[in-house]
Amino acid sequence: MMNGKAHLNRSAQRIVDRIIADGERLGITHTRGTLGEHLIDAGADSPGGLEVGLRMTEICMGGLGTVSMALDRHNEQWPLTVTVHSSQPVLACLGSQYAGWRLTHEKYFAMGSGPARLLARVEPLFEEIAYSETDASTSVLVLEADKPPPPAIVEKVAAATRLAPEALTFIYAPTQSLAGSVQIIGRSLEVALHKAHSLHFPLDNIIDGAGCSPVPAPHPDFLQAMGRTNDAIIYGGLVQLFVRGSASAARELAEQLPSNRSRDYGQPFAETFKKFNGDFYAIDPHLFSPAEVIVTAVETGETFRAGEWNRQMLEQSLG
Amino acid sequence: MMNGKAHLNRSAQRIVDRIIADGERLGITHTRGTLGEHLIDAGADSPGGLEVGLRMTEICMGGLGTVSMALDRHNEQWPLTVTVHSSQPVLACLGSQYAGWRLTHEKYFAMGSGPARLLARVEPLFEEIAYSETDASTSVLVLEADKPPPPAIVEKVAAATRLAPEALTFIYAPTQSLAGSVQIIGRSLEVALHKAHSLHFPLDNIIDGAGCSPVPAPHPDFLQAMGRTNDAIIYGGLVQLFVRGSASAARELAEQLPSNRSRDYGQPFAETFKKFNGDFYAIDPHLFSPAEVIVTAVETGETFRAGEWNRQMLEQSLG
Amino acid sequence: MMNGKAHLNRSAQRIVDRIIADGERLGITHTRGTLGEHLIDAGADSPGGLEVGLRMTEICMGGLGTVSMALDRHNEQWPLTVTVHSSQPVLACLGSQYAGWRLTHEKYFAMGSGPARLLARVEPLFEEIAYSETDASTSVLVLEADKPPPPAIVEKVAAATRLAPEALTFIYAPTQSLAGSVQIIGRSLEVALHKAHSLHFPLDNIIDGAGCSPVPAPHPDFLQAMGRTNDAIIYGGLVQLFVRGSASAARELAEQLPSNRSRDYGQPFAETFKKFNGDFYAIDPHLFSPAEVIVTAVETGETFRAGEWNRQMLEQSLG
Repeated sequence: MMNGKAHLNRSAQRIVDRIIADGERLGITHTRGTLGEHLIDAGADSPGGLEVGLRMTEICMGGLGTVSMALDRHNEQWPLTVTVHSSQPVLACLGSQYAGWRLTHEKYFAMGSGPARLLARVEPLFEEIAYSETDASTSVLVLEADKPPPPAIVEKVAAATRLAPEALTFIYAPTQSLAGSVQIIGRSLEVALHKAHSLHFPLDNIIDGAGCSPVPAPHPDFLQAMGRTNDAIIYGGLVQLFVRGSASAARELAEQLPSNRSRDYGQPFAETFKKFNGDFYAIDPHLFSPAEVIVTAVETGETFRAGEWNRQMLEQSLG
Repeated sequence: MMNGKAHLNRSAQRIVDRIIADGERLGITHTRGTLGEHLIDAGADSPGGLEVGLRMTEICMGGLGTVSMALDRHNEQWPLTVTVHSSQPVLACLGSQYAGWRLTHEKYFAMGSGPARLLARVEPLFEEIAYSETDASTSVLVLEADKPPPPAIVEKVAAATRLAPEALTFIYAPTQSLAGSVQIIGRSLEVALHKAHSLHFPLDNIIDGAGCSPVPAPHPDFLQAMGRTNDAIIYGGLVQLFVRGSASAARELAEQLPSNRSRDYGQPFAETFKKFNGDFYAIDPHLFSPAEVIVTAVETGETFRAGEWNRQMLEQSLG
Repeated sequence: MMNGKAHLNRSAQRIVDRIIADGERLGITHTRGTLGEHLIDAGADSPGGLEVGLRMTEICMGGLGTVSMALDRHNEQWPLTVTVHSSQPVLACLGSQYAGWRLTHEKYFAMGSGPARLLARVEPLFEEIAYSETDASTSVLVLEADKPPPPAIVEKVAAATRLAPEALTFIYAPTQSLAGSVQIIGRSLEVALHKAHSLHFPLDNIIDGAGCSPVPAPHPDFLQAMGRTNDAIIYGGLVQLFVRGSASAARELAEQLPSNRSRDYGQPFAETFKKFNGDFYAIDPHLFSPAEVIVTAVETGETFRAGEWNRQMLEQSLG
């Protein structure tokens, strides 16, 4: 039924419109770029903050997720916690939230996240996502970056999405900012789905899911900031997935999914990154996953749990 | 003041309209039945999911409750938790949410929940609920069922609510589905109110309340699924009620309210059900109540706590 | 940018409008006073409840805060918890929420809270708040009181805000009511900011923050009710602030901020109040602060924690 379509780009645009209307409340700046594109600075030269980070997470998920923040006293040292949920986890997290669109021009580099990816479909991952949007009149891309995209990238995005630059919004915040921290650790569910995919678990069988992660203190140094946001999920994240299929497949997924199954588990991410001389692709990709995982096989009613919350690593990394 | 009226049916209809608009996001299917009634499949032949379960809970409470889901790490094995609150608990939970309208036709059987009950008023319970709605132009009924209601039941509901079938929405999901699990364990506050009523505590004296329950994994077997949703509340639910009246009445209520005061407490519900050969009415009705209860007497400022969270039973039942 | 302005009064008015529309759901009564002012009784002669208390907190924060309530099982005896967050904490909490506008006429006494304070700017605190609203056409004041304001106070507020009485809304609930309890303990973040200010921490350096507090049972005696709401924060509150500036300034703030640094820490507030013969101003103002504090220095990435959750005092005071 058309009126029930997911419309990730339209939903994201509604969140963008509210961000602009709430500009002062959120500490953001909205400007137009040289090609007419909308630019929202959520933490580079503008202060931004936790709240716009939450809304960026909603945008990343194409409006298909519920995002909330609370103080969880069970997590004594890092009570501030972001929880995400989606009953369309594959579409929300892999179809939209995954920062998989590599955008480079000269010295500018950023990985694009958000529903514009669904229009561009330039990543191999989209071969496995049947959902498509052909009627989007606007689109949004979230960038973990300290600068707006240069015109060459705006043009590239416009061409790939088949939209005019005026119809595009780029919302950006660096890793070191509050908003950046939140939108990165808002990926607890997404990293679980991405790893499930790399473990060859059938995406169609993942039907619901929720995740949470503590919010680490931002760090002014990029490497430390990146380390903390990764470690918040790797050593402090929790995800529950609901899957179709056999109990043995669910058990296998639960056992393989937590970060502690990775070769590179056991030290702060910033140290791992240095050990590999900053070669991101040398790091075991299976490290990027939640500390604790619960997988429920809905067709058999069984639940499997694996992984561990790691206080020592959180203390070393998050401070 | 008319513009401040509670309007449970109107509020529920707004939630229905959003469910239909968000159809793909929620995994539901909206069709029209043979008499023109609106049918929403939220977990029978459609996948549904946790999110539509939360919205069904809001509908059940006639829009008078706040419903949220989070991962509560304090509850290590079953962190996924649904919390409900209402400052009109009697009207929301007994006037609307209680699944008290018995609807049968040939082999079809379902207990109706939701604000249509307020229009039909066919249950004796309504003798004690003064609130009535005479101006509702649409109505909604939530059914724990794997099939839409047959025309004979649609006609019965239309007659009892004095509305045309086209003005009625039936939203259904079986006990074994994700949405069903959520809408059933979203009754933590309701079961407390229903038991308070059966304990002859004056309903007018219950002025506010909140409750929570873990979300059990759905089970493909009806009996096990029913067992788990009951056990989630019986062995894992927590409710706080705010009551008028004497401290001794509040203490008495707190002491009688928790499930562990029941004769049939202490084994998984599915086993109890089997023990009584599936005769639901042979089971002690006082079993249906939260594991832990807090009752605050607002006129004296005293608070009474009773009951116990039961990990062993949760492990046996929820897995 | 004008369309991104914070507009605290306009945001608060939208919440007022919804409160009136949801009157029966919330248990409030809306009337017009002799000068045409809007009066909302949220807990004096009307029942009110927890939910309108949450909305009063949103009004107090001028719509710049996120306010939620949940059952936090980590807090076994007092699980009901209100959490607040704002990415504009100084403006939300000191510019609007702080109950700093002393309103007296004959025997009537109330401290005004809410965005009307931003229009009146009669308190010295406003010398340090650059933000101003000159285009507000309506305004709202929240009063911890069991009576509506007499006409003389309505006139005073109208004059100070340069608005007609018809454009003003006064929403009131006594300390002893459910709504009153919630809106008072909804000040966990605000008391932290106020104390930070009195410790001469630069307000401009406080850029984000969140706080939570248990909801105490209301007590029919004013002194006990006031004691409980204070103790809920003093012995049970938790706040995290994100600040600019040096790590040493952040550490100093964290060390000084918790209530246990006060001379008068260590007994229920009602007893302290009696000890000083009811002379509020004889009590150490530094007592009014959260039990536990986390301060994160965003420019250095360091986090400092101080204070302690005090079960013994909570048991003595909250019951």
